[in-house]
Amino acid sequence: MTDSKRLAVVGAGAVGGSVVELAADYGHSVVAFADSSSAVVDDDGIDTGTALDRKASEGHVGDGDPQDALAADYDVLVEATPTTLGDAHPGFSHLRTALERDRHVVLANKGPVAERYADVRDLERDSQGRVRFEATVGGAIPIVSTVEDLSPSHVTAARGVLNGTANFILSRMAAEGIDYEHVLAEAQDLGVAEADPTFDVEGTDAALKCVILANVLSEGEREFTLEDAEVEGITNVPGSALELAAEDGRTIRLVGEATRDGIRVGPRLVPQNAALAVTGTRNIVQLETDHAGQLNLSGRGAGGPETASAVLGDVGRLE
Amino acid sequence: MTDSKRLAVVGAGAVGGSVVELAADYGHSVVAFADSSSAVVDDDGIDTGTALDRKASEGHVGDGDPQDALAADYDVLVEATPTTLGDAHPGFSHLRTALERDRHVVLANKGPVAERYADVRDLERDSQGRVRFEATVGGAIPIVSTVEDLSPSHVTAARGVLNGTANFILSRMAAEGIDYEHVLAEAQDLGVAEADPTFDVEGTDAALKCVILANVLSEGEREFTLEDAEVEGITNVPGSALELAAEDGRTIRLVGEATRDGIRVGPRLVPQNAALAVTGTRNIVQLETDHAGQLNLSGRGAGGPETASAVLGDVGRLE
Repeated sequence: MTDSKRLAVVGAGAVGGSVVELAADYGHSVVAFADSSSAVVDDDGIDTGTALDRKASEGHVGDGDPQDALAADYDVLVEATPTTLGDAHPGFSHLRTALERDRHVVLANKGPVAERYADVRDLERDSQGRVRFEATVGGAIPIVSTVEDLSPSHVTAARGVLNGTANFILSRMAAEGIDYEHVLAEAQDLGVAEADPTFDVEGTDAALKCVILANVLSEGEREFTLEDAEVEGITNVPGSALELAAEDGRTIRLVGEATRDGIRVGPRLVPQNAALAVTGTRNIVQLETDHAGQLNLSGRGAGGPETASAVLGDVGRLE
Repeated sequence: MTDSKRLAVVGAGAVGGSVVELAADYGHSVVAFADSSSAVVDDDGIDTGTALDRKASEGHVGDGDPQDALAADYDVLVEATPTTLGDAHPGFSHLRTALERDRHVVLANKGPVAERYADVRDLERDSQGRVRFEATVGGAIPIVSTVEDLSPSHVTAARGVLNGTANFILSRMAAEGIDYEHVLAEAQDLGVAEADPTFDVEGTDAALKCVILANVLSEGEREFTLEDAEVEGITNVPGSALELAAEDGRTIRLVGEATRDGIRVGPRLVPQNAALAVTGTRNIVQLETDHAGQLNLSGRGAGGPETASAVLGDVGRLE
């Protein structure tokens, strides 16, 4: 049985909200919950229903200051603020505060492990707290923990379809024979694509996930950031390219690849019946191993409850 | 980093031999190695190359008595003798000896956890040693540890193609339009099927794996054994059934399903492009979860190094 942990959840978007909603179902309590402008803290466990209702109706989770959540008496900080690049603040400073207090950190925010991996590992080395980040790569799919179990030294490469929005657009373009702009508008109507879809369709999001995987594979021998990634998005893929591919039994997917030598993300031709040709918003990762052949892991790569499930899995793996 | 462990490996078939061969590569030493008639023991670590060469040339691993291996000073007993049904001996007695000495046990042998799960958990409760058994289900694929990370209570069902021999035969029947007997002969020539293929083609092997998954999902609330499984093999699947399925865009796979309510294994119609329609000797498992949707895990379901990789992953997860 997993030990019950007291969680402080920072970030009240789809993932943070789902962690708060599901924590009790995984045997944990939430003692603090913050969005960017407010917080609610209770050492005996906050009333999660009330906090989530207030967020939905009033736009804030409580009356406290967000900093109160970071100062609360928690075992694990769940960092679920939006991913930022460069110095990765405020996520990175939240992580630092927790580790300096010898608390564990579980990240849903990709910034700290994509942009400042060496700094994260340095802080972890001086702390009794540990850092886990399964939710940053592939949503519900247990990729980081599988690499950990295999031991990174036995994994030679990770390759996959890691952005559901881009994959939805390519799948629809292929199925309906329509152009990028039309499918993008449809995806935005459905809520699958954001109003500003740049992060997804330019390949940045997939690249960040591959950067994280390259950092895990490298075990600190070399640090990767987004600057090390060769990235091409899907905005220049014409419908005609998908038609030509289909005539040859193939399709196009936005494929990312991470090894200890580097990171590449771009549109690639793949056979229509290949494992990489997942459709819709599903993600897949293929791990190439030295002794165990190729492992394929696929599932839902995004979504509040799905990503929260990865966060809570990480919490369960902490001592 | 994984702590280095001293292993005693009992069983010198493809899996036991591969564990001995690869242990050092995973940072562990082998202090004892036994087959059914002999053993070699050395507290400083046996000479693994010599033992494997002797097994290949002379048919035994050393000059000692097999019981010497069980009495050796090891941290982890790797039980890789052939799976037996009913009382699951000698695998079960090896496991009991190790647990009574407060040592860990990693099973490649399905017998103890398929036929005597409650007894195994009872012995484990009274021991400082833990029992792990990733290698018993799906070879290299991390199925048991993924269920563990998700927490069994959040997994509602496990379904999959779990026998490579049966899958190879069905794949070849469909691809070549030939009958069961002809493909079986070919599979035996290739070493994919045993001289006596009963265990694989009658569904017993797949059922044992599903029994183990049902036991994991049930968390001790209910014990399953092979007797609880509804099992039908592939020996009565005519080539014409595969032809009819193909006309409808489908194929036939030997699918096993495990829930907290029971176990069913039998030939099922699946769409040709569905995840379950893996070809050749690959295995796949689909986990249905309450919050994370469906996770698909696929890879090599058998083979010495592949299964040894799962064994050594289990060793790495022990404290």
